[in-house]
Amino acid sequence: MKHIEQIKSYIEKNKKSYTNLLQQMVQEPSKAGNESGIQQLIADRLEESGFEVDKWKLDYELLSEHEYFCASRSDFAGSENVVGVLKGSGTGKSIILNGHVDVVPEGDLDQWIDDPFSGKVIDDKLYGRGSTDMKGGNLSALLAVEAIQRSGIKLKGDVIFQSVVEEESGGSGTLAAIERGYRADAALIPEPTNMRIFPKQQGSMWFKVHVYGKSAHGGTRYEGVSAIEKSMIVHDAILELEKQRNNSLTDPLFKNNPIPIPINIGKINGGNWPSSVADHVILEGRMGIAPGESPKDASQSLEDHLAGLPKTDEWFANASVEVEWFGARWLPGEIDEKHPLMKTLYESHFDVTGEKPLVEASPWGTDGGLLSQLAGVPVVVYGPGVTNMAHYPNEYIELEKIFETALIIAKTLISWCEIEEEQ
Amino acid sequence: MKHIEQIKSYIEKNKKSYTNLLQQMVQEPSKAGNESGIQQLIADRLEESGFEVDKWKLDYELLSEHEYFCASRSDFAGSENVVGVLKGSGTGKSIILNGHVDVVPEGDLDQWIDDPFSGKVIDDKLYGRGSTDMKGGNLSALLAVEAIQRSGIKLKGDVIFQSVVEEESGGSGTLAAIERGYRADAALIPEPTNMRIFPKQQGSMWFKVHVYGKSAHGGTRYEGVSAIEKSMIVHDAILELEKQRNNSLTDPLFKNNPIPIPINIGKINGGNWPSSVADHVILEGRMGIAPGESPKDASQSLEDHLAGLPKTDEWFANASVEVEWFGARWLPGEIDEKHPLMKTLYESHFDVTGEKPLVEASPWGTDGGLLSQLAGVPVVVYGPGVTNMAHYPNEYIELEKIFETALIIAKTLISWCEIEEEQ
Repeated sequence: MKHIEQIKSYIEKNKKSYTNLLQQMVQEPSKAGNESGIQQLIADRLEESGFEVDKWKLDYELLSEHEYFCASRSDFAGSENVVGVLKGSGTGKSIILNGHVDVVPEGDLDQWIDDPFSGKVIDDKLYGRGSTDMKGGNLSALLAVEAIQRSGIKLKGDVIFQSVVEEESGGSGTLAAIERGYRADAALIPEPTNMRIFPKQQGSMWFKVHVYGKSAHGGTRYEGVSAIEKSMIVHDAILELEKQRNNSLTDPLFKNNPIPIPINIGKINGGNWPSSVADHVILEGRMGIAPGESPKDASQSLEDHLAGLPKTDEWFANASVEVEWFGARWLPGEIDEKHPLMKTLYESHFDVTGEKPLVEASPWGTDGGLLSQLAGVPVVVYGPGVTNMAHYPNEYIELEKIFETALIIAKTLISWCEIEEEQ
Repeated sequence: MKHIEQIKSYIEKNKKSYTNLLQQMVQEPSKAGNESGIQQLIADRLEESGFEVDKWKLDYELLSEHEYFCASRSDFAGSENVVGVLKGSGTGKSIILNGHVDVVPEGDLDQWIDDPFSGKVIDDKLYGRGSTDMKGGNLSALLAVEAIQRSGIKLKGDVIFQSVVEEESGGSGTLAAIERGYRADAALIPEPTNMRIFPKQQGSMWFKVHVYGKSAHGGTRYEGVSAIEKSMIVHDAILELEKQRNNSLTDPLFKNNPIPIPINIGKINGGNWPSSVADHVILEGRMGIAPGESPKDASQSLEDHLAGLPKTDEWFANASVEVEWFGARWLPGEIDEKHPLMKTLYESHFDVTGEKPLVEASPWGTDGGLLSQLAGVPVVVYGPGVTNMAHYPNEYIELEKIFETALIIAKTLISWCEIEEEQ
């Protein structure tokens, strides 16, 4: 217990300095293609802290031929990966701490009270795009390792700190780290689970559905067929499929989730003139992939379901909808709930907070699917911050949750990697 | 009847030359703000043919203060009106022949088989944006007058040939001609009615309806409220209003029209990320205004109807939809069906074609509403070309219909304006 007291004391004494570091991290506007600044910051920091640092630009040629590649970019300029390895004595289990540094765009600037990259602290909350998703979680992981190390504690197993790019658009950063050969006995990804433990993560993939009508002048609209009207039938059919898919899920990890694997229709665009009948509408959405389900099975289920539309409306016999899979995709991931890392993390959480953690399946995808499915590394997702902050204006994270999580991760590392007893 | 034979013969002999003229007219890409070319062509032609020509740039300052002004532009650069007056001997009735030279944009170029402004003739059809709407009709009117005149026939009443701009976006060209003082005993507008006679024209106005939801991450979409879903309720409510408004119309002129005054929802746009719940959708459409109805009453009926949405779905009690009136507006117009010009035109059509013309109410707005409501000039709309060509790719017009209409208009002018008997 002495070690934990040391770590606790280190965290307590250094809150201000780590808050400053998080501010610096958030002030780096690391949208896709613009991650060089934050990655240099992280690389320098890891080097100072005694990690062996590996920093490299993603190789588009190499990655784009990979079966699991999914990206909307055509090169990876401005996007370097950073991996820091802290070698243990070699007899303990190794762990990957994986976190992404890319952030989603600010969105509508008018909805931000402050500069989206201000990093301002108000009432113990740090504001800015990426604070919750997921620079706050990255800071917890870094602080956990540094607290152990600067308290003079030596881990037996390796800690591989992965600061990756491109998570928000399909995982090329983690794919590149896997291709570079990094493996470990397990991995922890401190995405914003609100300190719930996610042994399973749903995957997701983006789609466009093209719905066709027949154009006509608005004054004689009865001569046309409105793709807007037809898109509503398609919309309802998609929600019907969502219902079917969710009804068939029985995993108790989903019990707190009213729609475990949602199909969200997030965008609609169609028609080009107020006074014409719209002949083309595009619905864009995001389909959840169940843990254990393949992206191919998920996509097939949508395509098959929409192929049945002529039964609902014969218009679709002649003007069939087209499904296009585009943009991002995240593989689902899962770890055995009885895996020792699960147990260790559960106990650490309980010890630190005095409360049993919630164990659930994630409502969104992470890079954990790639790590588990492609690299065979069991992954737990657990971190500070809440989902409904991520991707929205005025994103913030509660600093205390970051520090609490850091202590829980440190405890987990000590137990997982084991420590050298003092001489 | 001798005069008619002369005119018929003139038209017959000069088809090639008038086809060439229409080609030149269509080859002028006279989208809003780019009408100078065609207006110079028309002005020169009218001058050669002995009209007194008045050509002037629209005065934005003056027009924009007018009660009936509706335009999306902030100046009228590149948009001149041309009016040619052919004085009669003064004892006959005068007539305005009004046609617009502005054309709507080409739309998706990929859907055009040829250059949209080619003016190419294939199988006796002349192709190009504006051929049907309404340069073909303008040519009928011009040919009618020139045929009379070049056959040595002298009309007693004045012919006022108005070549106006800005019809497609709210009628500022005709408004400017009215403000300049042009009046006549009646007017004919050769819009593409497919040679049906339209004593009544519906008006129309454009709207946007803003529908609001509540944003959330797509993975937890049940935490949000989809503006896309809610927009479907609004869409249905608008169609319900359309039904109510049309059920209350009893005018037999609408008997061939399944939806006499349609409300067309032509565009839909909403949401900004496939994996977010959309919090704002905009529907854009065009609302028909019944002959005799004021734009204010029509707009009020939509606003009142949507104000009742909370009865359908209580979401709208907190997130009420907003209606915005924008872009273009056309006033409805009507002429007494027993008006002498109606009779004259009816008989001319019958004499030339051997068939009774259809008499209907128009499914769209024209500048006729301004001429009748603001200037008190009774208006009939009658011209070659069919509605479902207008505004679409590969627009064309059948040349023979133009020549046939020219003869019918010439006959109508002789009867309406009367002619000086030969000395």
